[in-house]
Amino acid sequence: MRFNPTLEKIRNYEAGKPIELVVREFGIDESEVVKLASNENPYGASPKALEAIRENSHRASLYPDDSMYALKEGLARRFGVEREELIIGAGSDQVLEFAARALLNPQTKVLMTKVTFAMYAIYATQQGAEVVRTSCYRHDFDELSHLVREHDPAIVHICTPNNPTGDAVDREALYSFLEGVREPLVIVDGAYMEYAVYKDPAKKIDPKELIDRFPNVLYLGTFSKAYGLGGMRVGYGIARREIIRELSKLRPPFNVTTLSLAAAVAALEDPDFVESSLRRNFQEMDRYLTFALQRGIDYIDSYTNFITYLFDNSLSSTQIADELLKRGVIIRDLASYGINGIRITVGTREQNTIFFDRFGELLDGRSTG
Amino acid sequence: MRFNPTLEKIRNYEAGKPIELVVREFGIDESEVVKLASNENPYGASPKALEAIRENSHRASLYPDDSMYALKEGLARRFGVEREELIIGAGSDQVLEFAARALLNPQTKVLMTKVTFAMYAIYATQQGAEVVRTSCYRHDFDELSHLVREHDPAIVHICTPNNPTGDAVDREALYSFLEGVREPLVIVDGAYMEYAVYKDPAKKIDPKELIDRFPNVLYLGTFSKAYGLGGMRVGYGIARREIIRELSKLRPPFNVTTLSLAAAVAALEDPDFVESSLRRNFQEMDRYLTFALQRGIDYIDSYTNFITYLFDNSLSSTQIADELLKRGVIIRDLASYGINGIRITVGTREQNTIFFDRFGELLDGRSTG
Repeated sequence: MRFNPTLEKIRNYEAGKPIELVVREFGIDESEVVKLASNENPYGASPKALEAIRENSHRASLYPDDSMYALKEGLARRFGVEREELIIGAGSDQVLEFAARALLNPQTKVLMTKVTFAMYAIYATQQGAEVVRTSCYRHDFDELSHLVREHDPAIVHICTPNNPTGDAVDREALYSFLEGVREPLVIVDGAYMEYAVYKDPAKKIDPKELIDRFPNVLYLGTFSKAYGLGGMRVGYGIARREIIRELSKLRPPFNVTTLSLAAAVAALEDPDFVESSLRRNFQEMDRYLTFALQRGIDYIDSYTNFITYLFDNSLSSTQIADELLKRGVIIRDLASYGINGIRITVGTREQNTIFFDRFGELLDGRSTG
Repeated sequence: MRFNPTLEKIRNYEAGKPIELVVREFGIDESEVVKLASNENPYGASPKALEAIRENSHRASLYPDDSMYALKEGLARRFGVEREELIIGAGSDQVLEFAARALLNPQTKVLMTKVTFAMYAIYATQQGAEVVRTSCYRHDFDELSHLVREHDPAIVHICTPNNPTGDAVDREALYSFLEGVREPLVIVDGAYMEYAVYKDPAKKIDPKELIDRFPNVLYLGTFSKAYGLGGMRVGYGIARREIIRELSKLRPPFNVTTLSLAAAVAALEDPDFVESSLRRNFQEMDRYLTFALQRGIDYIDSYTNFITYLFDNSLSSTQIADELLKRGVIIRDLASYGINGIRITVGTREQNTIFFDRFGELLDGRSTG
């Protein structure tokens, strides 16, 4: 058996530890564990979406509608685009995978910001493509433009708001950048866009306007974050139909479950739930800023449902993450991204209070220890 | 933008028409439509699985346990294999995709029987590999052995029972074949294995015995058929850990939904549901044999939950499929497989009666028309 040589270089994505694992490993009671590691919506999903799941559960034996008629209709209405400008994935992740497989091979390169969503590099590596990164963790469009000219990448990744840092680019700055980048596919990943738009309209990237102005752009959105359906795996790509047609060749049949489709359709019809999630998110975000100021911790201003705390040399993010884990608090250590910091999902009021309490104890223990 | 040249040759999988589509296209009331096209379990899913879905619906916002701990435990117990010998896919389809991407490239070939599951060739084509087929729609191990020596394929596909024909190979014949085929990965697709085992123990392929005896085999199983979870997209691969390790590099995180995992775990714990589905399936299958004999229609003896009727030149399978569709009966035309026949999923007693009635009318109309 001869496996393809590209496999040799692949390292797997490290998922946030599930609550079940902490319960098993540390013997902590499930009700005591607070998971603020995967940027899930702490308010759950829309009651309408949950009702759709329960109402359709008897259809679990039936293959999904592979044309995804109802969901495409809903998204087309929501964004003012055509059905042929849409592709649905098992999470927007899967649309990333389609794009990587459609465009990348060992002779190509992929350009991205120094610190960004880990799957971009993983899918690139799966295809044997070379990953080129900027020198700064923020999107620096000057450097990106320069690197596009230097490396002629097949794909450029823009993640706005960016994960795991939380910062977002201005629309006008993105548009200026795109004016000068006409050859590569530029993937604009808006997984957390609803949060950014709520906080600052200048960050809003409208998919319809985006693809009308730029023929080489693929916009990604998801139901996993503001829509609260992380466990259901539904995301989408929006692009001109020539691009969608090619990506669709790599979409396996029935890639989204019957209940996921039903849940996503219902979630689209409940904007109030999203609005309320966003409002509460930024109310709670304020407490994270206050805590950071009180404790003298640096942070990155966030346009998402998570916040990145940055530590100076007196603290190790890995040690802090480990200590929190033992106390039943799961957050994301950013050491593997080259950042001495932790990413914390903004949870419910109660979850955040537990985080502040346990992290505060930890910091106090250290300062007096 | 330069798409990979392999995309040029891809034709997409043609899914069985969903009921919704027939309702929309022909204006037939949903309750009047009978879908016997996708080999779903007509008895639905285990009540325990449905309960698990409803009980876990509030977890729709939470990403799945990416280690798939509970499901791997359940499958390891069920088959007597190790967790490291298991990989879980969004349907066994996705495990096929991992295998194709791990082993195939434009310099490789894939060997399969003339008529078999369409996705084998689609995934091969996505990788630019050449597809080699036998000359007969049944698995002819002599010809397969000969073609292995002639073409040195990277993957050999054995589908038993075979879809869309329904026939199954004998275990001893498969083992003899495998003795002489040590270089390629041989994928033994047992999606319908539960049905074959119920009908004839000589057809039983035990995954544990299979991988113990043959280091180059990947066994596939699914929850979509006998377990009645076609809409939830859960399947699995069983192979030696060296193979699983390589395939796992291509498994995207969270590839199975939170509710699908819960449903599959519960389904494994309800063997009575599976047993009852199998018993009723073959009771109803007898009616299809009787109908065929009465009407002088040829068929392929089936070890699955579907049956293939073969027509002589006086009938066109495509015309029959179209006429049945207009009457609200969805079956699968096999013309695209080069067979003048139709594949009918064995449904419930009531569904099958409707099929016999409407197909009978059609045949009578023709014979008197």
